[in-house]
Amino acid sequence: MVAYKRNVDTANISELTISRLSIYLRCVDQLLDLGVENVSSQELAKQFNLNSAQIRKDLAYFGEFGVRGVGYNVRELRQYVVEILGLDSERRLLIVGAGNLGYALCHYSGFSSGNFLVVGVLDSDPSRIGDATPAGLLVEDAERMAEIVTQRSVDIGIITTPATAAQKVCDQMVEAGLRAILNFVPIRVRAPEGVLVKTVDLKVHLEELCFFLAHTTSA
Amino acid sequence: MVAYKRNVDTANISELTISRLSIYLRCVDQLLDLGVENVSSQELAKQFNLNSAQIRKDLAYFGEFGVRGVGYNVRELRQYVVEILGLDSERRLLIVGAGNLGYALCHYSGFSSGNFLVVGVLDSDPSRIGDATPAGLLVEDAERMAEIVTQRSVDIGIITTPATAAQKVCDQMVEAGLRAILNFVPIRVRAPEGVLVKTVDLKVHLEELCFFLAHTTSA
Repeated sequence: MVAYKRNVDTANISELTISRLSIYLRCVDQLLDLGVENVSSQELAKQFNLNSAQIRKDLAYFGEFGVRGVGYNVRELRQYVVEILGLDSERRLLIVGAGNLGYALCHYSGFSSGNFLVVGVLDSDPSRIGDATPAGLLVEDAERMAEIVTQRSVDIGIITTPATAAQKVCDQMVEAGLRAILNFVPIRVRAPEGVLVKTVDLKVHLEELCFFLAHTTSA
Repeated sequence: MVAYKRNVDTANISELTISRLSIYLRCVDQLLDLGVENVSSQELAKQFNLNSAQIRKDLAYFGEFGVRGVGYNVRELRQYVVEILGLDSERRLLIVGAGNLGYALCHYSGFSSGNFLVVGVLDSDPSRIGDATPAGLLVEDAERMAEIVTQRSVDIGIITTPATAAQKVCDQMVEAGLRAILNFVPIRVRAPEGVLVKTVDLKVHLEELCFFLAHTTSA
């Protein structure tokens, strides 16, 4: 059974642990698709090229889970990871920056397949305000951010502005009470303690491909 | 000095190792910005919340590096990781799918800050072909993929089409001779052995923020 400690000291849990939990969730989803009901950390590690000791260690941060010699019930493991990651309740997103990337994220199917809902798209450019986004929302004035964050119970702010505006928008999000911000602008933005800003660096994925190209030869 | 083995057996190196190398590169860039000249794996680990044994192990895959008790010369370490990741030569990108995301990637400053160059944007929709992208390229007919891949020495294909077209575009990229593909469509696409497809899952980043929201309380 799941003995899940929600009030763990997150300061000791590295970002890498959290991103591995996301990876485990994807692996578990694949196992469920395949109809697998039980899996040991060794099998999980082997099938997805992971480290079994690491899996056990990562999950152990959050309490005792799994039965020695038997492993994990896949459905329970999924629910366990979903709860650890806090994905068991809907999270409401506000996108600021109604350019190509903002629009792309509005109807990104990967978001809607989770418990994520885009509840607003803001911009400060008067020529964009009132435009319909591909997802059917109207672009609203970024001046209204604080009011919209409160009224629509926004959980996470997403920055897709030009680089020059990113810090200002981040400050406004913090001011509006947001504690979790996803920044798609490839520059570092600062936020006070208690606010988590994740900067998405799309170049990382290209670097993995470059590694592959550099270390393999074509047939 | 750097004793770097290029011909390592990449089959034994996990994706997680590669993504950690990307993280090390970002850490090292920050140290260089701060004027730091030497760093030990312990200092690196402490400053960026990493694991020092893991750092040494990851780098050791590629040969002996660093001096016991002294650590790494930051500039050499950077060059070392750049070479391991294969980032020391320009990589030419072809984007297929001239929608919002394709356009956003055309002028994504994170790409141009690396050794990455977008050399073409393709689409199969006649109403889009001939349009100017924000980066000044013209959208070209996806039918011309094979010819363009060869003529412009494309290294990496990027898929930003609707989900329904992703597998077909991936097949065409493989057919055209591409061995490295970055897929932004959140579905699994299949490619033959010898071709690496990385699927970018933007939801992962949201999940990390959800973890934070679930495990901390607002002030």
